[in-house]
Amino acid sequence: MKKIEPTILKGTRDFTPQEVARRSFVMRKIRAIFEKFGYAELETPILSPAETILGKYGEEGDRLTYSWTDAGERQVALPYDLTVPFARYAAANWRELPMPFKRYQIQRVWRAEKPQKGRLREFYQCDIDVIGTKSLRVEAEIARVIVDVLTELGIPDFKIKINSRRLMNQVLAKFGIGENSAEVIRAIDKLDKTGPAPVAEELRRLGVEEADKLMILLSPAETQAKTLAKFGAFDTSEITETIKLAKELGVDEDYFEFDPSLARGLDYYTGIIFEVVSTAADFGTLCAGGRYDNLTELFEVNLQEGQTASGMGVAFGFERILLVLEELGLLKDVKAGAKAVVAQFPGLEKEAAAVYRELLAAGIPAEIYFEPAKLDKQLKYADKKEIPFVCLVGPEESKTGMVTLKNLETGEERKMTSAEAVEALK
Amino acid sequence: MKKIEPTILKGTRDFTPQEVARRSFVMRKIRAIFEKFGYAELETPILSPAETILGKYGEEGDRLTYSWTDAGERQVALPYDLTVPFARYAAANWRELPMPFKRYQIQRVWRAEKPQKGRLREFYQCDIDVIGTKSLRVEAEIARVIVDVLTELGIPDFKIKINSRRLMNQVLAKFGIGENSAEVIRAIDKLDKTGPAPVAEELRRLGVEEADKLMILLSPAETQAKTLAKFGAFDTSEITETIKLAKELGVDEDYFEFDPSLARGLDYYTGIIFEVVSTAADFGTLCAGGRYDNLTELFEVNLQEGQTASGMGVAFGFERILLVLEELGLLKDVKAGAKAVVAQFPGLEKEAAAVYRELLAAGIPAEIYFEPAKLDKQLKYADKKEIPFVCLVGPEESKTGMVTLKNLETGEERKMTSAEAVEALK
Repeated sequence: MKKIEPTILKGTRDFTPQEVARRSFVMRKIRAIFEKFGYAELETPILSPAETILGKYGEEGDRLTYSWTDAGERQVALPYDLTVPFARYAAANWRELPMPFKRYQIQRVWRAEKPQKGRLREFYQCDIDVIGTKSLRVEAEIARVIVDVLTELGIPDFKIKINSRRLMNQVLAKFGIGENSAEVIRAIDKLDKTGPAPVAEELRRLGVEEADKLMILLSPAETQAKTLAKFGAFDTSEITETIKLAKELGVDEDYFEFDPSLARGLDYYTGIIFEVVSTAADFGTLCAGGRYDNLTELFEVNLQEGQTASGMGVAFGFERILLVLEELGLLKDVKAGAKAVVAQFPGLEKEAAAVYRELLAAGIPAEIYFEPAKLDKQLKYADKKEIPFVCLVGPEESKTGMVTLKNLETGEERKMTSAEAVEALK
Repeated sequence: MKKIEPTILKGTRDFTPQEVARRSFVMRKIRAIFEKFGYAELETPILSPAETILGKYGEEGDRLTYSWTDAGERQVALPYDLTVPFARYAAANWRELPMPFKRYQIQRVWRAEKPQKGRLREFYQCDIDVIGTKSLRVEAEIARVIVDVLTELGIPDFKIKINSRRLMNQVLAKFGIGENSAEVIRAIDKLDKTGPAPVAEELRRLGVEEADKLMILLSPAETQAKTLAKFGAFDTSEITETIKLAKELGVDEDYFEFDPSLARGLDYYTGIIFEVVSTAADFGTLCAGGRYDNLTELFEVNLQEGQTASGMGVAFGFERILLVLEELGLLKDVKAGAKAVVAQFPGLEKEAAAVYRELLAAGIPAEIYFEPAKLDKQLKYADKKEIPFVCLVGPEESKTGMVTLKNLETGEERKMTSAEAVEALK
């Protein structure tokens, strides 16, 4: 058979055991918090009918979606995000689901983008959503979940930037811009990255006459109260109410930062939008999302009387959060692997196996070396795997019913009974 | 926008929160045992270069592999199993890996098969492998892992069927069949499903002259010792040695059943093969695998002096095991979701939020209802989600600083302080 280069595709990654250990550690913490608030996990298929993925994210989204025709002539696709599969699931199971329906989902998604640092073709998303109620208490609860997740992970300083698409639509209408001016919104969304000049130019190109005046209105004032005051002519109650309800749930209002230029690119937001950034360093967006009223309308939903398909959700940037935690050195003690290696001595394999069984019976994660190789080789193996202890039964130990426990970090060696070794390793 | 039917593809599945809870429960137990033995988790990409997947499983495997040309004209594919991605990873990182390299992997794989009961197009596999040593202690250790996993999960009776491809090749050579007679091996593998007659016929079709004599040799005798004795003219030491070494690691020899017709379809096995079946009921294969000497030779591996690329591994049939556990009723107490819902009373939302914060602070997984709906609706919500308690602050409770805790199973209601409610829910 032809030998093949063992390559992977650009924009995809292998996760080594040490990386998986750190990722699982972070995922476990995130899951625990989601579940504390009653969000239960949903899992949707990866291989999907193309029509349930395409046409939901605008033209660029379609272009970036992996889709193809399978051997059975079906148009199939890989998920572009987790919101649309969730909407699809909710629509398909509407009658059976407890409403409001709360779920979280942690799965891979795909984007056929040019791979670059921090931008992969295959990556995890981590979403929570509540669907089936328009209550702003959802926004408040999700703010609390965000605060708990980031605090629990140890991310020191962060802000929940908040705005309302409804408010933005009012503002745009006042400036003579039609509600559906997705292009204008996408231009405005770049304000905090590029500053006002390029945005104003882009807006003029899009036919906005008072672009500079709009820029001035959308720029934050010195304080949150003053920024809100600038919008006195508009209805900002959605924002103030969210902050108030979040406070009732224990979220200090200082976590929020009203940002009138915040727009979030996606077309489907209709109410409150969030974007969470670290204020300690420029780590980019850690979490973002918003309210959508129309998403399940993409799918056939049979609403019962009094029901709404409105939902609100955010996606945590799992890969980004992980990078931040690594950079802050918060994951350096998270390690995969066993606590001890039981070494093999030629002719004393049975004795080694007996000690190994004792360690296992005591619940100590341990390995036994597979061959009676040179001790040096066995020590190197443990060292390479960052396993802190080696347990040895040599001829002398076996005569006296003892084992030698070697601490690879300190180099210290001690003879003891196997029961003592179990205690020392516990 | 056109409304789309919220469908999924045949052979793929949504996992509801309750299903995910049960699946995660089982996965957690399996992971814990793998990690107890020092197997660390590896994760490989889903989107893969087609050449690293195709051509490894024979013609049928290629036909069943999802592969296509992406927008960048790359041939890409979805994994068919986890062994080949593992071999690819091992080959790519050979120099850096601690050898022998032990890993486990739990990921989805895809097969473009006709979907039917118990046969999906997208499903999880759950593999452990050790690569880089020919020691039969690997076979022994993996037998111990199998026993621990199935015992811990509560599967009552099972056998590890064992055979050796090397032994089978000796036998086939004796009968004048060339070593690489993959077709003959695949025919023999069906012996325990179809009985000897159809297999003998197929063997005759394949040109085996003494097909009946071969059938008699390959059929088990009344006892394991007698079956082994039938192969006195051949070398069965690999099998007896594996059983002996497993015994040293605490695996009772009664777990093993030497089955001389066991062949396992895949071409790449070269030594010991395992197939684990339940003896309590016909649940099919729960776990299977074997030793492979040639797999990493598919990829460029730069072996250093004294190194071997030989490996041994098994795949647990995760979906099958889950079905068995469901059938045995062993997962019925595993539930997703919160322990209590804090109900809303109109005008007393702040009081409800305060109680909710207390529950959260005490680490009790809880929900707060989003709207001051009719109490009946809120009780139904809790009931539908199988949440056992509802905590209510009504006008009377709020006056006296009390809450009412309602047990939905028994219907019992008790007034108490919120601190007492926290204690009751703990």
